[in-house]
Amino acid sequence: MTESNKKKCKIAVDALGGDFAPKHEIIGSLNALKESDDFEIILVGNKDKILQTAKNENLSIDENMIYHAPEIIHMHDKPTEAIKTKPNSSIVVAANLVKEKKADAFVSAGNTGAVAAVSTLLMGRLKNVERPTIGSFFPSKNNATFVFDVGAFVDVKPQHLLGYAILGSIFVKELYNIQNPSVALLSVGEEEEKGNKLVKETAQLLKQTKLNFIGNVEGRDILNGKCNIVLCDGFVGNILLKFGESVPGFMKHLLKQHADTSLFEKIKIGLFKNTLKKALSPLNPDLYGGVPLLGINGITIIGHGSSSPLAIKNMILRAKEMYDKNLLSKFEDALNNYE
Amino acid sequence: MTESNKKKCKIAVDALGGDFAPKHEIIGSLNALKESDDFEIILVGNKDKILQTAKNENLSIDENMIYHAPEIIHMHDKPTEAIKTKPNSSIVVAANLVKEKKADAFVSAGNTGAVAAVSTLLMGRLKNVERPTIGSFFPSKNNATFVFDVGAFVDVKPQHLLGYAILGSIFVKELYNIQNPSVALLSVGEEEEKGNKLVKETAQLLKQTKLNFIGNVEGRDILNGKCNIVLCDGFVGNILLKFGESVPGFMKHLLKQHADTSLFEKIKIGLFKNTLKKALSPLNPDLYGGVPLLGINGITIIGHGSSSPLAIKNMILRAKEMYDKNLLSKFEDALNNYE
Repeated sequence: MTESNKKKCKIAVDALGGDFAPKHEIIGSLNALKESDDFEIILVGNKDKILQTAKNENLSIDENMIYHAPEIIHMHDKPTEAIKTKPNSSIVVAANLVKEKKADAFVSAGNTGAVAAVSTLLMGRLKNVERPTIGSFFPSKNNATFVFDVGAFVDVKPQHLLGYAILGSIFVKELYNIQNPSVALLSVGEEEEKGNKLVKETAQLLKQTKLNFIGNVEGRDILNGKCNIVLCDGFVGNILLKFGESVPGFMKHLLKQHADTSLFEKIKIGLFKNTLKKALSPLNPDLYGGVPLLGINGITIIGHGSSSPLAIKNMILRAKEMYDKNLLSKFEDALNNYE
Repeated sequence: MTESNKKKCKIAVDALGGDFAPKHEIIGSLNALKESDDFEIILVGNKDKILQTAKNENLSIDENMIYHAPEIIHMHDKPTEAIKTKPNSSIVVAANLVKEKKADAFVSAGNTGAVAAVSTLLMGRLKNVERPTIGSFFPSKNNATFVFDVGAFVDVKPQHLLGYAILGSIFVKELYNIQNPSVALLSVGEEEEKGNKLVKETAQLLKQTKLNFIGNVEGRDILNGKCNIVLCDGFVGNILLKFGESVPGFMKHLLKQHADTSLFEKIKIGLFKNTLKKALSPLNPDLYGGVPLLGINGITIIGHGSSSPLAIKNMILRAKEMYDKNLLSKFEDALNNYE
């Protein structure tokens, strides 16, 4: 661990970002602090609102934990304009705390585009990074499958995907304890000649690196856990992520539809509900607690608008782990030394 | 019904295409004939093999049903070369029967690329069609959601997607009895400005048509059944289709994993198995029986390599329905009259 990491890690939590803010943010933060006492949380947002919510919910918070930020960037606000139009919003203020070294990491369940844009603009990019990337965990048979990118940029070049592969490899290696994470290009067939121009050109770049590049994988290989890092542009990744997120809801719909066919089936489904819930728990995105924005000169974790307190807690602990493991300097090393 | 359709429809079935050929193909064909007697089936493939398999399986088939084709195009054969290197294969011979008007439709569970390429080359394209398309049914809350394209071409232009929309609208209208099928572009956000160049340019084209274009949809909107026709390039569609196909297998894996945690849970899952199977039956691709190749001057239905006899039967009945409803001439009308 480096010298700088010996000080207590401070995490700026956007208290007014998510759909259930600030309630879920407060509960998640307090629960995270229960798990470890060697870090601090700064709740960024409207002070009165945070205190009032804490009071209403019978939650005891230290007023000194709060950093006042009166404005809110809403889900429908334009990401690129938010920084100018709402300089006192929780997102801009929290990202600024990281920029000014008053915090070591930033966690938000707010407007994804705004969190990504503001973090990138204020914290800047790591050297040699042309494009930051948002990677998402996908549940899979190997329990460590990440798709990069899931929505930071829809049009990308081969060197961008190469950058995602370098950053993603470090992320998975350090946080999932996998020594040589496998990297693959998402395509329409495993054979080298199958794919679009982007896939074919990126393959040529990846082959020249030290990365554990295994070639192309297909759509089915994500859940099958054929590799640790799946590369695609943000257009494909975002569509896939949202499709995947809609699967549990559709299953529920089908079960409900079937339950309505007979009372007997309804009772059976009722009795089986808990078992099914437990069996399918790996599909619960709250367990993974948000997605990292990689390639910026800071630690930012972005959560779903609907993040539960559990998701917020896990996002905070994930950010702390990235700080404790000194991921930023490991990213820098890898970016300088991948060939 | 037009004059030409009064003759008995003849369907050429590739008997040596699928992974379980010719067994599944023979059973599926015989079962299709049980459902209707106003059409004929031509089993195309190695005569001895077909007869031997029928004998082994105690299936009674009329020798006159068989059209001998000694060669087989395998799953690993290159689609574009197959027509030259294997002119006597079941795929080439069956497609030729349609070309020569000796058959009215072609059904195959063989090499998808080869079936598409051979059908297009031999039957030709409909007037005004630059690119044929393979559309796939997706189970959804509205029960009539098709994604075009799922793999015919990975790099496409806006006018190609427009063509898919015209063909897809007729297909869904006629086969699903939906008067004005809704058409949407698959993108990373619903707002008009969200998406890549292809999405934005295609939106401008679609707006000028009589089609029921509703704008962009996101990945989650497919299973939610927000529209009937989802447009994307074959790269995105193919990845999405294969991802979707892997979902039931992954659910099974999670249930098995959970069953292994305790005997009690194992018993519960065992008892619930049938209910779950019934509830999730809409996910069974065999019910839809293959995907249509639209835009060619003929009827071709392509099935999965692993097609069951049920899938083969449904593919045959789907091809017959397309013939009975005179879809080719309706496609032609629509292509001339969409603005």
